[in-house]
Amino acid sequence: MLERYGHGGDWVTAEERYGRPETGWLDFSANMNPAGPPEAVGAIFRDHWREIARYPDPAVRGLRAKLAREYGIPPDAILVGNGAAELIDLAVRGIGPASALLAQPSFKEYEDALKKAGVAVRTTRLAKERDYLLTDAELDSAISVPGAPGVDRPDCVFLGHPNNPTGRLVPRETIDRLRRNASLLLLDEAFMDFVPEEKDVSLIREAAESERLIVFRSMTKFYAIPGIRLGFMVAHPKRIAELRALQPPWSVNFLAQRIGEAVLDEREYAARTRAWLREERPWLTGRLRSLGIEACPSDVNYLLGELPAASGWTARTLQDHLAGRGILIRDASLFQGLSERHFRIAVRLRGENERLLQELEQALSRGAPAHV
Amino acid sequence: MLERYGHGGDWVTAEERYGRPETGWLDFSANMNPAGPPEAVGAIFRDHWREIARYPDPAVRGLRAKLAREYGIPPDAILVGNGAAELIDLAVRGIGPASALLAQPSFKEYEDALKKAGVAVRTTRLAKERDYLLTDAELDSAISVPGAPGVDRPDCVFLGHPNNPTGRLVPRETIDRLRRNASLLLLDEAFMDFVPEEKDVSLIREAAESERLIVFRSMTKFYAIPGIRLGFMVAHPKRIAELRALQPPWSVNFLAQRIGEAVLDEREYAARTRAWLREERPWLTGRLRSLGIEACPSDVNYLLGELPAASGWTARTLQDHLAGRGILIRDASLFQGLSERHFRIAVRLRGENERLLQELEQALSRGAPAHV
Repeated sequence: MLERYGHGGDWVTAEERYGRPETGWLDFSANMNPAGPPEAVGAIFRDHWREIARYPDPAVRGLRAKLAREYGIPPDAILVGNGAAELIDLAVRGIGPASALLAQPSFKEYEDALKKAGVAVRTTRLAKERDYLLTDAELDSAISVPGAPGVDRPDCVFLGHPNNPTGRLVPRETIDRLRRNASLLLLDEAFMDFVPEEKDVSLIREAAESERLIVFRSMTKFYAIPGIRLGFMVAHPKRIAELRALQPPWSVNFLAQRIGEAVLDEREYAARTRAWLREERPWLTGRLRSLGIEACPSDVNYLLGELPAASGWTARTLQDHLAGRGILIRDASLFQGLSERHFRIAVRLRGENERLLQELEQALSRGAPAHV
Repeated sequence: MLERYGHGGDWVTAEERYGRPETGWLDFSANMNPAGPPEAVGAIFRDHWREIARYPDPAVRGLRAKLAREYGIPPDAILVGNGAAELIDLAVRGIGPASALLAQPSFKEYEDALKKAGVAVRTTRLAKERDYLLTDAELDSAISVPGAPGVDRPDCVFLGHPNNPTGRLVPRETIDRLRRNASLLLLDEAFMDFVPEEKDVSLIREAAESERLIVFRSMTKFYAIPGIRLGFMVAHPKRIAELRALQPPWSVNFLAQRIGEAVLDEREYAARTRAWLREERPWLTGRLRSLGIEACPSDVNYLLGELPAASGWTARTLQDHLAGRGILIRDASLFQGLSERHFRIAVRLRGENERLLQELEQALSRGAPAHV
């Protein structure tokens, strides 16, 4: 399978498994902006590459100052990391909760980071019947309302906002309820910049002032730069100082810092991306549905789909089949709580989406292979 | 002071403190190859920068295979990291010793990583009178020989080989004695590639087969690429697998992996670097001594110096003075066990070294400033 190391977008494994050179893929398995990196990134490589002869700024002062201005928060409320993955791992270790609640399916790294740190993980289910949203009743049975009888409360709740692989934002009422009742809420906003209402929906400002809320952000999905590793977290300055002390020195490489500063100025790129997504996501969702695929309503740049049971296809057999045709999709059956017919795809450019749809249509009409 | 974040090479702090633009420094405070990055690095930035639109290989397969061939060890004995700093932190956390022995002065990150992980740190002293080398008697009193009476043995010993800031290799007899008597030996070989006899002196091959030896390597000093972050560790494959499971995914960015592969082919750059150092280090050592500065005999590309007591200068006042002249040096009084008159400088190119010597000569002949 493509997800040998737990995730999509792994072209080296794709080459090993399917025999096509690692750069020859049309990749729907990683949720990147299909526009590719903004041109400002190229300029940094051209003009600044020799600066890797110096150490990165250990305190990431330039980028933190710029992020602080962008989001209207103090620089001391920001910790930049070697991708959001480093910060999730660091926060979980540094805080050291005894127990945590996850709503599954969700991004694998929450559970991995928690288990590595020896945290007891409890799970509540995001059900298809409710469009993968948490109900108040589910929440209250998982996190007892203070003063009311019920289960003992986990030390923290870790949610994707929007969630991966479902693509759903956590509704404001649910956030409010959690902020009232959870001891500590960790929100992964890795895909939040794809949401047009980002500034209203993100919890960044609240996190900068709260001792019970932490927000993780990635800068690599929206700007299509996952190879350089760049993420940040926002929390109360007191907590940031504690976690900063645990981070190894020079975690954020020099170019990631420079690139992070540059992409924040890419207003037109951002507007173009949001305009593309506003049009492309509903179109692709509709076309998937017209093929009989159940597509979960998404707030971001990827879609969770479920193959028709009658088709005989599973995500795994479909992944293998499409890989033979040069296309990578994510086998979402590997996410806890999903069926073997669930897959996840990034929304890409129109021509690429059409190519995928064509392949899907042919596969579904032809029927699944006899031997798996 | 320059070392606000614990290390040299911090040009942003230098600008904040001394007012000169962050790129205007002649930097002797970080131990980089003064030749700058090999040209192959530039080619990667030109030809491959767009590939940062994909995730790095989570298993770093290409670079591990190449390192394995280079050192004649199995790829499974290698873990690549976001700089050696990440790996030191990871190994100490993952192994979780109760106690550790350090020989001070040494690189600050050993103690920092141990203390972060709650390890009890014991210290033995590297004395100037013995050229900062450990004697057998010192070793035996710090690590009791099995079966013999003495102190209880620490769970591990962490040494720089060569050591920083002294520049001394650990003699083979000491290594052998430690390998017989220490439960676990961690060797930081970050500067080992500057040693002409690297292949004979390095413990990499032994580490790949031993459950009681770990070697850390940096790839950024010798190739002057600290900004990109790249290091690796070598240990028994069983231990590597355990530590790999703790490492956050995609720790090693895409360009670092590509660059690591490319620089290993830079044989001429490597030969040129060693030829330069063979000539330049003894010359600079001699010139420092002729100024009355005690220079520790060094096996690598940096020198530990001690200002004459009669001069009135301290490393701190000298650092401030030279910074006013555009030159950065490392205040080595911050290393445990050194005096306020110790400083460390990288060996640079002849013209640059002459510039430093000239400034030192003037400073010493003029006398220290009246007010510190």
